[in-house]
Amino acid sequence: MDKHSIVELRPIGVVHSPYKTPEEAPCQGRGLVPVSELEIFSEYEAGLKDIEGFSHLIVLYYFHRCEIRSLHFTMPQDRTPHGIFTTRLPNRPNPLGLSVVTLVARQANILRVKEMDVADKTPILDIKPYVPGIDERRGVKIGWLKLFWPHLSSFQPD
Amino acid sequence: MDKHSIVELRPIGVVHSPYKTPEEAPCQGRGLVPVSELEIFSEYEAGLKDIEGFSHLIVLYYFHRCEIRSLHFTMPQDRTPHGIFTTRLPNRPNPLGLSVVTLVARQANILRVKEMDVADKTPILDIKPYVPGIDERRGVKIGWLKLFWPHLSSFQPD
Repeated sequence: MDKHSIVELRPIGVVHSPYKTPEEAPCQGRGLVPVSELEIFSEYEAGLKDIEGFSHLIVLYYFHRCEIRSLHFTMPQDRTPHGIFTTRLPNRPNPLGLSVVTLVARQANILRVKEMDVADKTPILDIKPYVPGIDERRGVKIGWLKLFWPHLSSFQPD
Repeated sequence: MDKHSIVELRPIGVVHSPYKTPEEAPCQGRGLVPVSELEIFSEYEAGLKDIEGFSHLIVLYYFHRCEIRSLHFTMPQDRTPHGIFTTRLPNRPNPLGLSVVTLVARQANILRVKEMDVADKTPILDIKPYVPGIDERRGVKIGWLKLFWPHLSSFQPD
């Protein structure tokens, strides 16, 4: 594969969330109480077997309503452009999103979760278990983000 | 979008790693010392601006050499099938991979990183900053994974 290749994926499900538009969706999901439903299409339901035993999931999705692409982002406060890969914004070359969510309950092919921060009808591409021994790091530096959100450089209790 | 829709993405770069085949690549990257290079194609290099200030990145990639898809995975030790969405294996419906890596150095469009655990020539789809205040959780339950890897339910120091 090279830069001209196309990676083709198919949605495995869809988010049902309280946020009807991207503008209504919060910037980040950490600590959010409203429940969203992750509907996994029936042909993939078997892949959820035993997921009830997991408290936190990583959801990968496609920002389907994001039509603007950019390589830079500028905060109004500092007017200095920063690279899009140093942000979590949707308008990146491949508009993929990632959220860590809390699994509240499963009913067949529906996962009820908290801390999902995207608009209704967002297509889901993958679900993975969140595993602290794989995914957590200490001594993290968050670059220019620290100027605006210094608390984000370490774990935030609810 | 629905289950019949196709999401089209293009690689933004490619991994150069010491592992020539998927079989040579380690199961997980946590604590790995060998350095891999993330080559970001020149047309996206501007999106890396200021990334030097970040110590850890989330890399999303496509398991391009994974041709088998499955909804289940069975450990030889317990013979009980588990849902593929409770694993981090590549042979999922959309073969997307996610690694948290340590940024060692940047040289123009090349990011030298540790803890990357994939085969050489793996296409990169996205890079995001790893942000503890967004991505970290406590009190995590890891379901059936705990039977085999009990240490993974909490942070592992190197």
